[in-house]
Amino acid sequence: MRIRLVQMEVAPGRPAENTRRILEHVAAARRDGIALAAFSEMVIPGYLLGDEWERPAFLRDCETCGERVREASAGLTVVFGNVGIDWHKRNEDGRARKYDALFVAEDGRFIGPEGSPYPFAIKTLMPNYREFDDSRHFYDLRKLAFELGRDVRQLLAPVVTRCGRLGAVLCEDGWDGDYALSPLRILAEKGVDLFVNASCSPFTLNKNHKRNRVFAAAAKALGRPLCYVNNTGIQNNGKTVFTFDGSSCVYDGEGGQVEGPAAFTEGVLDVTIPPGGGRFGRPVTLHDDDTAMTARALLYGMERFMKACGVQRVVVGASGGIDSALVAALYARLLPAGDLVLVNMPSRYNSATTVNLARELAANLGCGYAEIPIEDSVRLTRSQIDGLTVTWAGGATRRLELGEALLENVQARDRSGRVLAAVAAAVGGVFTCNANKAEMTVGYTTLYGDLGGYLAAIADLWKGDVYAVARHVNREIHGRDVIPEGSFRVVPSAELSPAQAVDEGKGDPLVYPYHDCLFRSWVEAWNRATPEDNLEWYMAGTLETRLGYAGSVGDLFAGPEAFIADLERWWTQYQGLGVAKRIQAPPVLAVKRRAFGFDHREAQMGPRYTERYQVLRRQALKTP
Amino acid sequence: MRIRLVQMEVAPGRPAENTRRILEHVAAARRDGIALAAFSEMVIPGYLLGDEWERPAFLRDCETCGERVREASAGLTVVFGNVGIDWHKRNEDGRARKYDALFVAEDGRFIGPEGSPYPFAIKTLMPNYREFDDSRHFYDLRKLAFELGRDVRQLLAPVVTRCGRLGAVLCEDGWDGDYALSPLRILAEKGVDLFVNASCSPFTLNKNHKRNRVFAAAAKALGRPLCYVNNTGIQNNGKTVFTFDGSSCVYDGEGGQVEGPAAFTEGVLDVTIPPGGGRFGRPVTLHDDDTAMTARALLYGMERFMKACGVQRVVVGASGGIDSALVAALYARLLPAGDLVLVNMPSRYNSATTVNLARELAANLGCGYAEIPIEDSVRLTRSQIDGLTVTWAGGATRRLELGEALLENVQARDRSGRVLAAVAAAVGGVFTCNANKAEMTVGYTTLYGDLGGYLAAIADLWKGDVYAVARHVNREIHGRDVIPEGSFRVVPSAELSPAQAVDEGKGDPLVYPYHDCLFRSWVEAWNRATPEDNLEWYMAGTLETRLGYAGSVGDLFAGPEAFIADLERWWTQYQGLGVAKRIQAPPVLAVKRRAFGFDHREAQMGPRYTERYQVLRRQALKTP
Repeated sequence: MRIRLVQMEVAPGRPAENTRRILEHVAAARRDGIALAAFSEMVIPGYLLGDEWERPAFLRDCETCGERVREASAGLTVVFGNVGIDWHKRNEDGRARKYDALFVAEDGRFIGPEGSPYPFAIKTLMPNYREFDDSRHFYDLRKLAFELGRDVRQLLAPVVTRCGRLGAVLCEDGWDGDYALSPLRILAEKGVDLFVNASCSPFTLNKNHKRNRVFAAAAKALGRPLCYVNNTGIQNNGKTVFTFDGSSCVYDGEGGQVEGPAAFTEGVLDVTIPPGGGRFGRPVTLHDDDTAMTARALLYGMERFMKACGVQRVVVGASGGIDSALVAALYARLLPAGDLVLVNMPSRYNSATTVNLARELAANLGCGYAEIPIEDSVRLTRSQIDGLTVTWAGGATRRLELGEALLENVQARDRSGRVLAAVAAAVGGVFTCNANKAEMTVGYTTLYGDLGGYLAAIADLWKGDVYAVARHVNREIHGRDVIPEGSFRVVPSAELSPAQAVDEGKGDPLVYPYHDCLFRSWVEAWNRATPEDNLEWYMAGTLETRLGYAGSVGDLFAGPEAFIADLERWWTQYQGLGVAKRIQAPPVLAVKRRAFGFDHREAQMGPRYTERYQVLRRQALKTP
Repeated sequence: MRIRLVQMEVAPGRPAENTRRILEHVAAARRDGIALAAFSEMVIPGYLLGDEWERPAFLRDCETCGERVREASAGLTVVFGNVGIDWHKRNEDGRARKYDALFVAEDGRFIGPEGSPYPFAIKTLMPNYREFDDSRHFYDLRKLAFELGRDVRQLLAPVVTRCGRLGAVLCEDGWDGDYALSPLRILAEKGVDLFVNASCSPFTLNKNHKRNRVFAAAAKALGRPLCYVNNTGIQNNGKTVFTFDGSSCVYDGEGGQVEGPAAFTEGVLDVTIPPGGGRFGRPVTLHDDDTAMTARALLYGMERFMKACGVQRVVVGASGGIDSALVAALYARLLPAGDLVLVNMPSRYNSATTVNLARELAANLGCGYAEIPIEDSVRLTRSQIDGLTVTWAGGATRRLELGEALLENVQARDRSGRVLAAVAAAVGGVFTCNANKAEMTVGYTTLYGDLGGYLAAIADLWKGDVYAVARHVNREIHGRDVIPEGSFRVVPSAELSPAQAVDEGKGDPLVYPYHDCLFRSWVEAWNRATPEDNLEWYMAGTLETRLGYAGSVGDLFAGPEAFIADLERWWTQYQGLGVAKRIQAPPVLAVKRRAFGFDHREAQMGPRYTERYQVLRRQALKTP
């Protein structure tokens, strides 16, 4: 039996557009003598759509589109994801009943699982972690079973098709490790010839590694082939933009694998399933994703996001540092040189070193370049505000002072809010946010300044990742050192005051190799660490191991006072102003677990320390 | 039997702080001879905390605090909400098992429901709509029953205390209309003397009306008194700030009610429950919330949010229009006049009319005032960008143009990103965002300009609401016309170009009385409308009724062309740039259903129209 997995790019929220392409694929599959063509989860509506599901008009469109696919299924079996709607029942929010559903169409009719009340299979396990909101929108099979007074094991049943008994499941149904039931196992017990797991699974660094391990083991344990079909494209939840790599493949019944189209590429995978479904693939190779994969995800996400927003020209504020250089070098791969403009905006604190690096970068990329000094504007702002008299009705007055420290933020806002926004408007484009994940974590950015921009493309990369990806971009993407060596070597600095003079080796207050690791323990660890944990590790002498920090903490901090002062400084920023800034930050392009935004939800509650932290702190500092 | 409901202000994320206050209340209740003291849901940790639940150190703190309340329960029954943790089991996300739990402590020990595996009652129904994310963090009783292979009806059981058989439930458990089971009814069948519904229920306009109706009916149907105990304070989910009004009360077994402390006020309600629990309250009065209640919620939320963020001084950009005037008048009630500064920032397009109104407002409020013209800065920006030459490595150049249209946004950004941010920094305070809900809906604001600010306090008010609340603030809050009559009468205008000259009656392109209603159908209707619905209503002649628009649509639009052009113009803005702007907008103070942010989640997908809309459009325009 010849089957085809269709790895298709899905346009979120555009059912008619997706359906047009599905129908083309169905026609091609029929021409090619395919018995079964499988599409991804929610291939008609898209999946990460915010609250789009609350619009009945949108749901009706999805339903109509699904009917069109059913009508086109003459002569073959078509498996595809869509929203399954029961207009006569209600979701728990009182709106129309919606299921995350897998439809199987054959010869113009839908076939539901044996004994199912609906002509479609229903997602049983609902991810409600990270960026997912499944239970917000969809009624799961467990709830349906309860409502019907039946056992969910009764409702989980194979779909009997001309191609055999299909175990039709959706994404999380295959990731059952932490659930009280295993849909795959229940289905297998009822006799399944072939499993289809239709997914809409966002790319996350190293997720494919884990999926290959889990899914290959499941196929082997159940002794049946398992088709994994995932879409490409991008989808977002407002604050966070996710890429979809596809990586569709078939796991055979002995745990082997037939790989499909390349990651982030549309295409189909045709496989002939031998009778019995035993070994027909190659051994699964497990490997972590590398820097190349990070760069691919970034480029793919940036390119698709520009397209989705209709962006055709991009302005990058180029400081000479590594972050803006990486951003510029990435956009240079995605845009004609005529549509990319770098702007350097020196103030009195900017060194010739960095201005020259920005100029060199632009020359290397062949893109547009301009220098727009901000000195006059900052002086004007200072002259308007510093010394300004505010008056009260009763005659009281107050003279405002705008000192050096405040002028640092004035400079940052002048660059983005005044210059870059105006230049972007003048060229008919957008400007970028070049913040990295370490800066975003502790709000080491200025609101309406360098935190502005239409997309924060590298805000899910730690500073160390930025350097690694930048090296890769030079070596493999551009094939030459477009990012000047000086940008790798210059000390990271905001250059907003004499205390940040790069030529004197002065720069950011962050020791990135260490702070990257510390912040990762707060943000990315599945069970997130807090100062209580960090201090406990420090006192136990296990901090380096726990953080994965290659250096020695003893070299950074003379003793517990210094360690604690640094810990509390950054924790206060992470929990305090950092949150306020992230609330107004641009969308973040996600590449790893816990990208800021919808994958890392947070409340503005100010810095907080646990009671046990206070105890440990007193112990460490030997204070009463 | 004397019981006490404790309506306490909860500090989210601060278990030790909340527990200190709980213990004071417990001691007082014992002194006062109270038999049973009930606190709200999650009174120890707080409830809307983002992903704080992913930190084991935080969970341990909550657990320790709960033990302290248990130890303090000698001689009385204490009912309180906390997170119930089972460190030996996992949630479906692989993290520690967490329940939204109601603890009953008596004489130093916890009492669980009869036959329960845990010494606490577990929330059965999980809200996953609006701002709620319950299933993201908590395992519900239905899942537990499934895991244990038991019927959830077995696990739902009264807690047998010295005070009788308690039906201990949490918030949503009492709102069972759209669920497949009713916890209250199941408990009642097992014999309950008194129901306690501990809630952490954010204020939403008219929610108390609905709750009084639903809860009084439930108490009557079950023939048992029902205590509703809710907290005060504010909690947020980053993008959206929610107030909690408390409104704790007791419903008697015949549907009467004993009201508790005033809304938004801490306090206790002592009630003597007569044997049998029949009628002891007054008839429930049902009424919608009025403008006064909106104003109270705003003032309460603004006051608490300032406190939570440590804000002591506020700068308001005062344009002379109604929005900024209302914001200033509200802050004037919350801050000493010395800590409130109004800044008017005229450009060449600002009329003497509005500048005078701003000045008059400041005089009326007795707050600080300054005029900071932006003309020089805008000219400087223009001179730097307009005509600037961008050069390419190959020698190509492009001359930038910064025309009149683009200068509108330059002005707006200059005001907030340059002037207000610097003034706020100079006074050691923050500046405000004065956008209303109509502007936020269609992005009729400038990013890094008037959309900036630390809080968007009136962004959940339609323009009509702004006028109504402003009238109320003059009449009832200040007792005199602090907001000048001229601000009510001047045409709403951004005054950014000659096309917006207020003295010529020119202003915003929005007809607020109509567009408020249209946008509400898109944003606030539970089943949200789209242009498909709007056009259908228009064609059927029912648009005014459907929208609740008091005027005639025929007076606004000459025919379907004009109607459709307007509809598509604003829908495109709402779905397009409006989303991009909201992603970077300040936190919104919520007062009604569907405040922007976490209560109205959205993806950036560009404007989209359903297929049926296209059909209706062709019919309406008589095009093929």
